[in-house]
Amino acid sequence: MSPLGGGSLLLAWQLKGKHVLIVGGGDVASGRIESVLAADARVTLITPSNGLHPLTKRFLDGPYSITYHDRLFGGVQDLANVDLVLTAIDDVAQSCVICSLCRELKIPVNVADIPESCDFYFGSQIRDGPLQIMISTNGNSPKLANIIRKKIEQNLPEHAGDAIIRVGELRAKLKERAPGVGGETGKRRMRWMIDVCTSWEMEELALLDDQMMRKLLDDGWEKNAVPSPAEMGARSRQMYSATPNVAAPGILVTTLSFVAGAACASLFLLARRR
Amino acid sequence: MSPLGGGSLLLAWQLKGKHVLIVGGGDVASGRIESVLAADARVTLITPSNGLHPLTKRFLDGPYSITYHDRLFGGVQDLANVDLVLTAIDDVAQSCVICSLCRELKIPVNVADIPESCDFYFGSQIRDGPLQIMISTNGNSPKLANIIRKKIEQNLPEHAGDAIIRVGELRAKLKERAPGVGGETGKRRMRWMIDVCTSWEMEELALLDDQMMRKLLDDGWEKNAVPSPAEMGARSRQMYSATPNVAAPGILVTTLSFVAGAACASLFLLARRR
Repeated sequence: MSPLGGGSLLLAWQLKGKHVLIVGGGDVASGRIESVLAADARVTLITPSNGLHPLTKRFLDGPYSITYHDRLFGGVQDLANVDLVLTAIDDVAQSCVICSLCRELKIPVNVADIPESCDFYFGSQIRDGPLQIMISTNGNSPKLANIIRKKIEQNLPEHAGDAIIRVGELRAKLKERAPGVGGETGKRRMRWMIDVCTSWEMEELALLDDQMMRKLLDDGWEKNAVPSPAEMGARSRQMYSATPNVAAPGILVTTLSFVAGAACASLFLLARRR
Repeated sequence: MSPLGGGSLLLAWQLKGKHVLIVGGGDVASGRIESVLAADARVTLITPSNGLHPLTKRFLDGPYSITYHDRLFGGVQDLANVDLVLTAIDDVAQSCVICSLCRELKIPVNVADIPESCDFYFGSQIRDGPLQIMISTNGNSPKLANIIRKKIEQNLPEHAGDAIIRVGELRAKLKERAPGVGGETGKRRMRWMIDVCTSWEMEELALLDDQMMRKLLDDGWEKNAVPSPAEMGARSRQMYSATPNVAAPGILVTTLSFVAGAACASLFLLARRR
């Protein structure tokens, strides 16, 4: 093992238009269906209908691209034109058969609960529009992965997903205005986008609309500058001001203590005077 | 596109003992080498030595499992027994040739900077021992992925990596004590491990040593309970007490304000008396 080793290669696998076979219909299978639909896969589900989990049923009844076969896995012919295979069945022997066939055909495969039969593992995940985050403990503790996921979710910048959508749009508009792959223009484009992302707050980026993007490109990119949201006359940040004023309770406590102190001293002195 | 769609399938790809070919020697290639060494891959690097980036050179000089060929990519024979291909070269035509060959041979491939030639993308990553986190914006904004990565890193529970290692060890010891795949024992094991992870703090889990694990299994698992670290006579949490006492400043401010109020009132009343 290398000094760096012991981990996995974390990847964002592309499934748009790809064919994914899922064998099994329980709750694990329903989670798998959700994961691959999120990546725009074409799904084939093979499992007897008497074992369908309610969540799996809901996917079959929904507006999703799923081909369903109400039967057991039928052999190598079920793997024709398949790009990825996920199994989640209790039959260990059958799982091993499917895994061997996939390895022969060089189809990436994940067999739930049998690590040796997996080319890849899943992790705990967060999704906010185009933002996806995966937490893996490399099989050591799914529960801790879950706990860490919740902590990350709580601390995630608000509107991160929206900000990413807007910045993606701004990038596309910039590329239309200053086209070309690589070279000096490519480098300048990248530098300017980095400057925008670092000098604007996430919640400000999330508010960029078409008009503001045009203005940002006219007054910013064309003049090799990054105007601030205020200079741009952007809609006030307060639109999103859900954050409470943390100073307020401090001031209140200080004032009350001051008044209490004054009152006690006054009472003491006035009492002594009499 | 499904209502859920627009994303990727985030995965932890397994490369232990697998053969990864990297074509290119620049700084992007050096990042690729680091990523696959982290997953214990056997690496073959093909690139002329006159274009080697210092970071890539450092990997070649280090204690890593890398086979180096000082030349350009030579064709399909370079893909024999290869499980994954990553290219990071400026020659777009050559990149396309490599990608087509990989697709024919069903070898997963990533061609840097050419999304259409990628079966998968990379994202911004965090590593803490067995803990790995990936942040993907699905190509919309690498810079925002980076900013979000930094925020997550700052808020990550201290000692998360250590806690995961210890919990992985505890799980292995429990499996030795109460073996078997699935069934009632499997379910009880899972429930108990969840109880331990939720009732102990991350920093307490990180302090578990062999002796404490044995005690936890004897006094906890065997009696169907989860003793607290205090009940276990665990080493004090204060060993790791980097967290300041947040109540202290509040009390200080309150006291000072009270005293200030008392002083002001006293001065006022005493001045009036004369």
